[in-house]
Amino acid sequence: MIPLHIERIGLALPPNTENAEELSKKIGRSADWIRRRAGVETRHISDLSMPELGAQAGLDALGDGPPPDLLINASGVAHQVLPDTSVFIQNAMGLSAIPSFSIHATCLSFIAALQCASGLLNQGFYRRILVVSSDLGSRGRNFEEAESAALLGDGAAAAVLTLPPEGIISGMHSFKMQTYPEGREFTAVRGGGTRLHPQNPATTAADNLFHMKGPAIFKMALRETPPIIDAVLKKAHLEKQDLQLVVPHQASGFGVEVYRRYGFSEKQVVDIVEKQGNCVSASIPMALAHAIQTRRLNRGDDFMLVGTGAGLSIAACILRF
Amino acid sequence: MIPLHIERIGLALPPNTENAEELSKKIGRSADWIRRRAGVETRHISDLSMPELGAQAGLDALGDGPPPDLLINASGVAHQVLPDTSVFIQNAMGLSAIPSFSIHATCLSFIAALQCASGLLNQGFYRRILVVSSDLGSRGRNFEEAESAALLGDGAAAAVLTLPPEGIISGMHSFKMQTYPEGREFTAVRGGGTRLHPQNPATTAADNLFHMKGPAIFKMALRETPPIIDAVLKKAHLEKQDLQLVVPHQASGFGVEVYRRYGFSEKQVVDIVEKQGNCVSASIPMALAHAIQTRRLNRGDDFMLVGTGAGLSIAACILRF
Repeated sequence: MIPLHIERIGLALPPNTENAEELSKKIGRSADWIRRRAGVETRHISDLSMPELGAQAGLDALGDGPPPDLLINASGVAHQVLPDTSVFIQNAMGLSAIPSFSIHATCLSFIAALQCASGLLNQGFYRRILVVSSDLGSRGRNFEEAESAALLGDGAAAAVLTLPPEGIISGMHSFKMQTYPEGREFTAVRGGGTRLHPQNPATTAADNLFHMKGPAIFKMALRETPPIIDAVLKKAHLEKQDLQLVVPHQASGFGVEVYRRYGFSEKQVVDIVEKQGNCVSASIPMALAHAIQTRRLNRGDDFMLVGTGAGLSIAACILRF
Repeated sequence: MIPLHIERIGLALPPNTENAEELSKKIGRSADWIRRRAGVETRHISDLSMPELGAQAGLDALGDGPPPDLLINASGVAHQVLPDTSVFIQNAMGLSAIPSFSIHATCLSFIAALQCASGLLNQGFYRRILVVSSDLGSRGRNFEEAESAALLGDGAAAAVLTLPPEGIISGMHSFKMQTYPEGREFTAVRGGGTRLHPQNPATTAADNLFHMKGPAIFKMALRETPPIIDAVLKKAHLEKQDLQLVVPHQASGFGVEVYRRYGFSEKQVVDIVEKQGNCVSASIPMALAHAIQTRRLNRGDDFMLVGTGAGLSIAACILRF
């Protein structure tokens, strides 16, 4: 097990919400259709910018503790093209002179950042790393594409990572990620970069909004996820029932429910998608925060973070809290 | 010294170039003004997309060797908002099922990725990491802002990173990065993300283009860089004259020349800015590739990668090749 300690986790949920009834008018589908197809009753909608929301989560994670010596932004979408979003989060937290950069693997950014952080902490580069995932999925909704618009919400979560303190055994048992570029068009915002630059006359409004091919994602995810779960369990010398919790990306109602099909019990799987929707990179740490706050995850417990992200990427890691 | 081996480095320079004379017509300044102010005579202009150019560099770095078991995109600007650019580079390289994500610290992305890679390799997560930096700075040029438009060019470079093979001592002596959000507006592309979304009517054309306040950057960089250089030298137990080479970000003619003011000799400082311009994240690994190809850097040599990036961030690391 590679030493890694999640000292504290912080959360920021915007006070404004939008329920299925309210959203139904925008996308021309009934509230029941939204609940049935997306599995989402309410989602939070942020008035704050992405770095401001991320900073709230970051400050919540820090609590009364000292500032971090590295800040990693692990969000799915950027605040602006450059500088990278970590700079704006650092600024919104009232900090300065702290090294910061971004790790981006869309919905799996938090998992990728955890892996990098474990390497950096164990090599002695840093002692206290703050990872912040903040996403405003609501701003990228394409109301012409009801299926994906029904999913997205806003939120942020953050984690303070250290090496385990004296007497505590915590860390990463195993990690596996696979990226399949065959799925690069399954989930996409095609604009915003050098491909379809905002000033390129060929760029359409739809190019700048979220686009998703749900059935294609599920087909690939259903085939590729079980071997990855099996691999991380084997590496950790654990069986499915040994895991206290499975904390999946909150992709959709079905995207969470599917972990029961993969052999986990309802009690094991953390499910916040009905109340918070798919918050892109923030979903995994938000679900983790929920599990810790509700005492479903306690020190010494083994648990799994797992999910799919645009790419298509699939990642899973097993940790001891 | 933390073990880290740069096995091979690859380069991709677009065949098309634009010289100061040709650029002068676009920005309403003379060719001499461009040479004097930017220090750039020619820059490469790519017909290829950013992932295609990055894939060329990646394949050049791999040579006849096996594929990597992790691909990190360390570019300054994204191909599109999502999925992250690593997916598109992987696809353009003809690879699949390789875990991949992006590390983004604008012009310092390559340095930040090197640090993360050293942690990941030493923790045994991966054995062979390909880091690719590819940027099409030319597409973000604002011809109304002659000063920054005179600087930018296109290019890509990549490195295969492993642990040192038997009998070779190579690695990272020291690393330091500092990010000052006070400088977040000094170098910016304000659009493209959730701040000034392309579909936001308030977003202007200038918001989607590169913007730079040269004098403000220099003022902060001149004050903050020397202590960072001193810190990495001290940690490495080396003096300035012990370094075979200094490989700086090719920010501008002055931005490279300034390392002589910091106490390094002309012979030590790698300078490719006159012929290739500022290629954002790709500049540092392109300059490193140049140094290796011209045999100015050889196995066993100690050298420094150093630069400033949008943020404002400053980073330096001392390595043994």
